[in-house]
Amino acid sequence: MPEWRKDPILEKWVVIATERGKRPSDFKVPKEEKKGYECPLCEHHEAETPPEVLSYRERETESNRPGWWVRVVSNKFPALKIEGNSEIRKQGPYQLMDGVGAHEVVVETPDHRKSLENLNEYQVREVIRAWRDRSLDLRHDTRFKYIQIFKNFGSVAGASLDHPHSQIIATPMVPAYAFEKMGGLTKHARLTGNCILCDIIQNERQDPQRVVVESQQFISMTPFASRSPFETWIIPREHQADYGHIREDQVGDLAYVLRSTLKKISAALDQPPYNMVIVTAPVNYFSLDLAHFHWHIEIMPRLTTAAGFELGTGFYINPTPPEMAAAELREAVPEYDETFKNNIEVVEKYV
Amino acid sequence: MPEWRKDPILEKWVVIATERGKRPSDFKVPKEEKKGYECPLCEHHEAETPPEVLSYRERETESNRPGWWVRVVSNKFPALKIEGNSEIRKQGPYQLMDGVGAHEVVVETPDHRKSLENLNEYQVREVIRAWRDRSLDLRHDTRFKYIQIFKNFGSVAGASLDHPHSQIIATPMVPAYAFEKMGGLTKHARLTGNCILCDIIQNERQDPQRVVVESQQFISMTPFASRSPFETWIIPREHQADYGHIREDQVGDLAYVLRSTLKKISAALDQPPYNMVIVTAPVNYFSLDLAHFHWHIEIMPRLTTAAGFELGTGFYINPTPPEMAAAELREAVPEYDETFKNNIEVVEKYV
Repeated sequence: MPEWRKDPILEKWVVIATERGKRPSDFKVPKEEKKGYECPLCEHHEAETPPEVLSYRERETESNRPGWWVRVVSNKFPALKIEGNSEIRKQGPYQLMDGVGAHEVVVETPDHRKSLENLNEYQVREVIRAWRDRSLDLRHDTRFKYIQIFKNFGSVAGASLDHPHSQIIATPMVPAYAFEKMGGLTKHARLTGNCILCDIIQNERQDPQRVVVESQQFISMTPFASRSPFETWIIPREHQADYGHIREDQVGDLAYVLRSTLKKISAALDQPPYNMVIVTAPVNYFSLDLAHFHWHIEIMPRLTTAAGFELGTGFYINPTPPEMAAAELREAVPEYDETFKNNIEVVEKYV
Repeated sequence: MPEWRKDPILEKWVVIATERGKRPSDFKVPKEEKKGYECPLCEHHEAETPPEVLSYRERETESNRPGWWVRVVSNKFPALKIEGNSEIRKQGPYQLMDGVGAHEVVVETPDHRKSLENLNEYQVREVIRAWRDRSLDLRHDTRFKYIQIFKNFGSVAGASLDHPHSQIIATPMVPAYAFEKMGGLTKHARLTGNCILCDIIQNERQDPQRVVVESQQFISMTPFASRSPFETWIIPREHQADYGHIREDQVGDLAYVLRSTLKKISAALDQPPYNMVIVTAPVNYFSLDLAHFHWHIEIMPRLTTAAGFELGTGFYINPTPPEMAAAELREAVPEYDETFKNNIEVVEKYV
């Protein structure tokens, strides 16, 4: 019997196929070859991007020159532009606004041939810091109400560049998804005095059938009402509203959990395309409800296609129970080193 | 300058790229070959499907035998099952329910080689009637609160069968999307005394830059805040809450507008994959707000990939302004007859 399961924060339902659940081998994971080994995001190509807004680099090297290990630049083809007016205009029955926003690319490594989970832990920590530092800087522009940090891996997941990168878009309004999350968290807090995500962490640790990786500070788990196969969330165990407030002791821990989780997904599903988003509290927005937010990372491997039913209803149909997905991920041996060696020469500098 | 535009019903924002808008030739439309010319949905294969729940057929032919022109069967691999209990159970901090629901397949023609827009108008009217008749029948099961009628065309859009078909899923709860639509329509009605969709129809007819096809009873248009390129809606011009209440004089008109719209999309974009959903009022659900609903059809060609930004925010980025899309669709000559003749022999019986 399939099951309807309710997302405890959004109160949206998903359908979980509990019989004949799909295992990793049941999915046709689209394989993608990297196109070439050089691109505008590579070291020595700094002049081909807009100037950097942040870089972590060797002492005595100049901006927009080689010597960096993480680099953030404005998107050359931004979806939104920094200039413009954030006032709402009317047009007949409609409302519109200039396409104000910031759109940045976080280059996660100078090495085209890597992927986020194959970077060493120091480098992953630096990527996590770059996300944090840009989030803290972008909010100085008080027009921005939300900083969306996200990563698309593989063209099926919407990536147009091979080079390991993530993106940041700052928007002049709070997105629906963040509003809905804040609404659900606030409602539960008012009813029970507790944070539902804190409650869930406690529940999952007692009965760890959906736990993938756990550390002192973070838990990685497949949510009870997973929308798609192998959806995995990484949640700080301590209640914390704003990703921008991540502490240094958490950064190291998150690097371990993020890297391990991505390695397991890559090993279990043969490096599938995926989307990753950081869901966090709005900025420059004043409400007591902000304190109810509990930021987290959502990773969605792209193994199924959301189609008419999902579009028309908002319900998702998930053919892999999250308990099965978590078991597969726990058991997955990250064999990346072997496959990696077969494919390309390891550039020790960045390993 | 890109533009933020607000969906007037859902009050969600989308980003419209107004400069260098993408024209049809800028999209790589995945081409798909039909796999073979026979399948379980074809005439003479009736025994390979679950028994029919509805068929329109020749006099003196028997059910589950040839002689039908539209046939509705239960899905052989249903996402939801008719047996079970629609009571909500608790499991720790979570809620769940048996996977209750109905899942049916509407076979739109006995001819494997056709597509919905290439059927003649009589046949399209019969498909529209089958959707209506199943909607009216399924609601007799009062566990069901919503009847989702939808169509996936092409594997990129989630279709697993080539044979022209649509699907119906009845669910034991009102989906989020219908709730949000009803909420937006009700809010506007309370503020202004008017239906926002009725207002929009009036506005678009006065300034028809987004109109694609218009008839006595229906209008087909690209919405002001289109989420994706060439998104097209078909809306009854008269306020009507429930698709199940479509009248016979509307059926003929809708067949014309639906067929013309799909032909134009097919001609302009070279038969792209698409999803189509009917957004309509909940059933077996008692609220004065039901009367504020205004049903409509949403057609979404699958030309772009919703990725991390869309997942994390609920905002969409649309590279084709709807005004440009509507102009392309208005001008598109449906050359389907020519291409059709080149590909396959026309079976006159069903043309």
